[in-house]
Amino acid sequence: MNDGSQIEPAWIAVDWGTSNLRAWAMAADGNVLAEATSDEGMAKLTHVEFEPALLRLIAPWLGKGQTLVAACGMVGSRQGWCEAPYRAVPCTPLDPAAQVTAPSTDPRILIRIAPGLKQTAPADVMRGEETQIAGALRLLPGYDGVLCLPGTHSKWAQISAGEVVSFQTFMTGEMFALLSETSVLRHGMQGEGWDDAAFDLGVSDAISRPDRIGARLFSLRAEGLISGLGPASARSRLSGLLIGTELAASRPYWLGQRITLIGAAKLSAAYARALSAQGIDAQHLSATDCTLAGLASLVSQTEIAR
Amino acid sequence: MNDGSQIEPAWIAVDWGTSNLRAWAMAADGNVLAEATSDEGMAKLTHVEFEPALLRLIAPWLGKGQTLVAACGMVGSRQGWCEAPYRAVPCTPLDPAAQVTAPSTDPRILIRIAPGLKQTAPADVMRGEETQIAGALRLLPGYDGVLCLPGTHSKWAQISAGEVVSFQTFMTGEMFALLSETSVLRHGMQGEGWDDAAFDLGVSDAISRPDRIGARLFSLRAEGLISGLGPASARSRLSGLLIGTELAASRPYWLGQRITLIGAAKLSAAYARALSAQGIDAQHLSATDCTLAGLASLVSQTEIAR
Repeated sequence: MNDGSQIEPAWIAVDWGTSNLRAWAMAADGNVLAEATSDEGMAKLTHVEFEPALLRLIAPWLGKGQTLVAACGMVGSRQGWCEAPYRAVPCTPLDPAAQVTAPSTDPRILIRIAPGLKQTAPADVMRGEETQIAGALRLLPGYDGVLCLPGTHSKWAQISAGEVVSFQTFMTGEMFALLSETSVLRHGMQGEGWDDAAFDLGVSDAISRPDRIGARLFSLRAEGLISGLGPASARSRLSGLLIGTELAASRPYWLGQRITLIGAAKLSAAYARALSAQGIDAQHLSATDCTLAGLASLVSQTEIAR
Repeated sequence: MNDGSQIEPAWIAVDWGTSNLRAWAMAADGNVLAEATSDEGMAKLTHVEFEPALLRLIAPWLGKGQTLVAACGMVGSRQGWCEAPYRAVPCTPLDPAAQVTAPSTDPRILIRIAPGLKQTAPADVMRGEETQIAGALRLLPGYDGVLCLPGTHSKWAQISAGEVVSFQTFMTGEMFALLSETSVLRHGMQGEGWDDAAFDLGVSDAISRPDRIGARLFSLRAEGLISGLGPASARSRLSGLLIGTELAASRPYWLGQRITLIGAAKLSAAYARALSAQGIDAQHLSATDCTLAGLASLVSQTEIAR
């Protein structure tokens, strides 16, 4: 990778979420030539601000011809650049024919946005994760089993014969952020310390008695006030309680299944630890590797050449 | 009640919480002569700012002699005006001898702060609710059973022979505020509309399968996106899910018990409706009535005269 001033990407990969925009200059062989990120996520932009925000990031990579930009994530939502209507499961995670071309004025770029997936019952949606799932299936050919994508909104997806059969979203990451940073519990959770034993206790507590979760949370504050529970232990136990609550409700997804985690290293390690305590040995893929592999699979199947 | 310019209260009642300060000028017979509120809650004040904040509110009620101010709530926490150490259950909700006199410089006031309660296992604390409980026991002499105090942090308390035997806190109100106003769910919950049927569905869903709560929340967002779930129905179902989760975990408190709700009318009505669906007929007391009755019981038992 270099600073992008003299590279000639075959195409550009873009992961455009609610809070962040990430772009990669890709070589024809799938190698990353350069990457760039900004905080101009979907939530900060109006319709007409998407193209300028993208150009601020990728202009150094553009040549005289037209470069294909393959994008996924909230950029394709109704509040995004251009709506890419959800595809309904069961279906393959991505379909090149379902990509939507976003309106743009700069002749150097052609933007193709991948649609997300929806499920009617129980109602659920994803945008961005479908691309990671497609990438995982490219990295693990013939995969049958379950993919777990921990994050702000964790997703569990049942995969069979190359299709997403069903999926389920959990707000675990957002709940952890709200409870540890905004709620009354924040007073006893400062810092970034970690306590594995406290995490394990939270997981086992939540999995064995998930019906008691409502009674567990305020105890973290009370134990800090009257029993000296430290901030690292309190944060770790909260994380364990919330991940344990997710595992209790996602049991049909992981019990007796082959599981692969797709996500950030630290968070995936926490999920792997919690699953391991249930006798499940999960493997791990990097979320970025999966996103790039998924977008590359779209580009390799698409009819548009540079 | 009048504007306070010519009244002569026998004493002053103060409920000083995290976010708000409320004061009442009380007659010797227990009637309210005047009341005043401000947003100078505990969280906004340093130690030395409490007395000026109180005087801004009650100065019009003060005469030449010394007036007793009986206070409860977070004003007695470590971050408050003056710490009033927790009393340990089982015990009576209030003990006049355990009140703490706050340091003050104005000779016209004598501030007495009621301590909160603590429980070692499971760890729990309360500040302010003990006064409402004492008031409820004054309004319902000889009460044996359970008191439920819905709010930001709901409390359930088992009462026997005039003592708080045990109690349990739930973060239901704070979770509702965070999820409906701050989380991704806020997009589908604007406004103040209400839908009883959606509330009932949330309650029954959570009580019958509390282990699935983690899987229920994001569905509210997804149903808004793909099935047209309206904001009033989404908010009401979220409320039902969270109150139902509380009821699932507080079952030992309410099953087969006499229940009295102490709280704001609308929220108490929601709890009464949820309990009614479980075959429990709860009565209701106003939180303010209980706070004033509790502080009055302290004043009538205290040795300090005006």
